[in-house]
Amino acid sequence: MAHIALGVDENQFPGITGPMIYRPETAKPLNELAEVLLRGPHTLPPGERELIAAYVSGLNECQFCCGSHSAFAAAQLEQGMSLVDQVRADLDSAPVSPKLRALLRIAGAVQVSGRDVTPELISAAREAGSTDLEIHDAVLIAAAFCMFNRYVDGLGTLAPDDPQAYAYSAKNIVEHGYRV
Amino acid sequence: MAHIALGVDENQFPGITGPMIYRPETAKPLNELAEVLLRGPHTLPPGERELIAAYVSGLNECQFCCGSHSAFAAAQLEQGMSLVDQVRADLDSAPVSPKLRALLRIAGAVQVSGRDVTPELISAAREAGSTDLEIHDAVLIAAAFCMFNRYVDGLGTLAPDDPQAYAYSAKNIVEHGYRV
Repeated sequence: MAHIALGVDENQFPGITGPMIYRPETAKPLNELAEVLLRGPHTLPPGERELIAAYVSGLNECQFCCGSHSAFAAAQLEQGMSLVDQVRADLDSAPVSPKLRALLRIAGAVQVSGRDVTPELISAAREAGSTDLEIHDAVLIAAAFCMFNRYVDGLGTLAPDDPQAYAYSAKNIVEHGYRV
Repeated sequence: MAHIALGVDENQFPGITGPMIYRPETAKPLNELAEVLLRGPHTLPPGERELIAAYVSGLNECQFCCGSHSAFAAAQLEQGMSLVDQVRADLDSAPVSPKLRALLRIAGAVQVSGRDVTPELISAAREAGSTDLEIHDAVLIAAAFCMFNRYVDGLGTLAPDDPQAYAYSAKNIVEHGYRV
């Protein structure tokens, strides 16, 4: 059970969904941020941006966010959950493009600290073909999930164990997005 | 110089201000979130909420955010910068109310990981008189600054050394807020 009384049945509204119903004033900009970063017009497809979110959530060991965004990535990537699993298990050997790998490395650095993003990581991303906007958004997606993960776990919310729960949400997000 | 070309003179637009001009689509929800959390109608005065932001930014060693929100807190707290300095130097002995101390302890846990927020920290906050909304917002302010700090430092933006730069921004934020 969550640390505060969210006023919802947590089995029906697990993870971030309870706090978002509890505090709609903050839910609005949080959902807007997720929509722009993960689904707005972009040179990186939504599946790759969701993969960055899933990767960072995995590093932060946030079961709800990692389960959710892994499912959202899988639903929008040709190679599905097997690619998400490979990236999370071993980024160096996962079959992603050099550009995406370089952006994921930047995201991994951000997860530890913004100050861990080195000029070398930036150069490597640029040499692999990343634009400044892609680098900017990789940094901000990683930073944003360091927030979302702490929000979800800091309130002690429920994370479903059943992968089907996340797959069901994925359908909804892919169809309707984060703005509700 | 920042890791990407922000298209601004960084001496004029240091820290988060450059990336916010560079990417207005994400600046909008980020500023909206800061406005609701730090200045919206609340039982915790803005100075105390800014103090939570400054404390977490200090723990994350983000010079720009810590300098900024320390100045914003100082400008809105009766005891000014001396209280901010005492909280940042030693929370246990700083002359804050038991409630604010308990909320700052929760924020400090969130800075490490959401999973570090224990039922004991929540009970202590409640016994000191915190409401559920105050606990919710302390968690989310701390989580949000784990994002803002990583955003600012992950892009390698400039942080002014002169405290006057932050005091000048404080005047602007106190008068006009974050939505610009």
